[in-house]
Amino acid sequence: MPVADSPRPPERTVSPDTDALLPSQLLDFLGCRTPDAWLDWALDNTELLLIDHAQCEKKAASTAMSLLYRYVDRPLLLSKMSQLAREELLHFEQVVTLMEARGIGYRHLSASRYAEGLRRHVRPQDPERLVDILIIGAFIEARSCERFARLIPHLDSELAKFYRSLVKSEGRHYEDYLMLAREYAASSIESRIALFAAHEAELVQTPDTAFRFHSGVPA
Amino acid sequence: MPVADSPRPPERTVSPDTDALLPSQLLDFLGCRTPDAWLDWALDNTELLLIDHAQCEKKAASTAMSLLYRYVDRPLLLSKMSQLAREELLHFEQVVTLMEARGIGYRHLSASRYAEGLRRHVRPQDPERLVDILIIGAFIEARSCERFARLIPHLDSELAKFYRSLVKSEGRHYEDYLMLAREYAASSIESRIALFAAHEAELVQTPDTAFRFHSGVPA
Repeated sequence: MPVADSPRPPERTVSPDTDALLPSQLLDFLGCRTPDAWLDWALDNTELLLIDHAQCEKKAASTAMSLLYRYVDRPLLLSKMSQLAREELLHFEQVVTLMEARGIGYRHLSASRYAEGLRRHVRPQDPERLVDILIIGAFIEARSCERFARLIPHLDSELAKFYRSLVKSEGRHYEDYLMLAREYAASSIESRIALFAAHEAELVQTPDTAFRFHSGVPA
Repeated sequence: MPVADSPRPPERTVSPDTDALLPSQLLDFLGCRTPDAWLDWALDNTELLLIDHAQCEKKAASTAMSLLYRYVDRPLLLSKMSQLAREELLHFEQVVTLMEARGIGYRHLSASRYAEGLRRHVRPQDPERLVDILIIGAFIEARSCERFARLIPHLDSELAKFYRSLVKSEGRHYEDYLMLAREYAASSIESRIALFAAHEAELVQTPDTAFRFHSGVPA
């Protein structure tokens, strides 16, 4: 079963439908839109897209779980991150089921530079460390959301329906991460958001070596 | 709110009620019953019991998730372990909520010797490694189940009700681990089960330094 509808729609500009799926607050949060070149790359690599998507859901669950170990004295964080990890694991199962139905074998993929490119800017001491990790979580969820929305008009109906459901849940995750970052910060986090927005936009807009869900544009 | 009913029932022998909660197959699988001395220790350390219980749920989720990374080419394992991790995380949230309602602060606890005492016997090469890890998973779930059932008659009604629900789900996890171990083994796993049953029974029956959910008896 093809992932992308064939023939592929020629129009790559952001459609009004795509924007309608995304809260304007989320679009304002991101420093840039995903370049059209990434969308083309994705639609030429739909198997990789699904495999790396499964990988991303698993990693999102792991990242949330790692916070359950380090910050045991913050009950709100524990409950939000545990719930988020459960949702990401459910998405993981859903992607794996879709892959199986389409005869796509799961294989190891190297990680893209994206998450590490953001984490290198995390401040070493708590609570700054926690706040930065939460802000990065918000960016990863917001970008995932935006990319799902960009992909939807070009996918077959089954995958489009699935990705529409993910836009909603990843959108909630973005809000949760941001709420927690504000909760645990000693002062305003706006300057940190601006810094990570700039780094994130650069990772999204500059040439990258391999296609992944969070990669930049083709080199 | 007290965890154990007061006055504590004097009878510590295994009650017919306890056995009624547990499938006979699960009791036969374990090499021994939990000694009465552990039960007394637990009822004298009810705060530690809950904190370490939260810890165990979190670790059970992490262990299941670690298999999602190593064995990506086994779809049945991926779906079962992801589902199991989600259930353990839900239990984690439930324990944390109970702790909060009872004014019990979550703090870091050192791990008991139990899981490491089992894992040191894991064979290094796959698929033997995977089979051993799955058998250990079955033992940890079965023992947890048996200990919940032993505790239930001595707990307040809220906690007893919660632990009764856990007996059912951890019992399913024990079955899933065992089913997967048989699925991925090249030959009979009975001798490995016997070996781990002996090690597990020793860890449960011998003196231990600190009280934990999976500790031995007081030194």
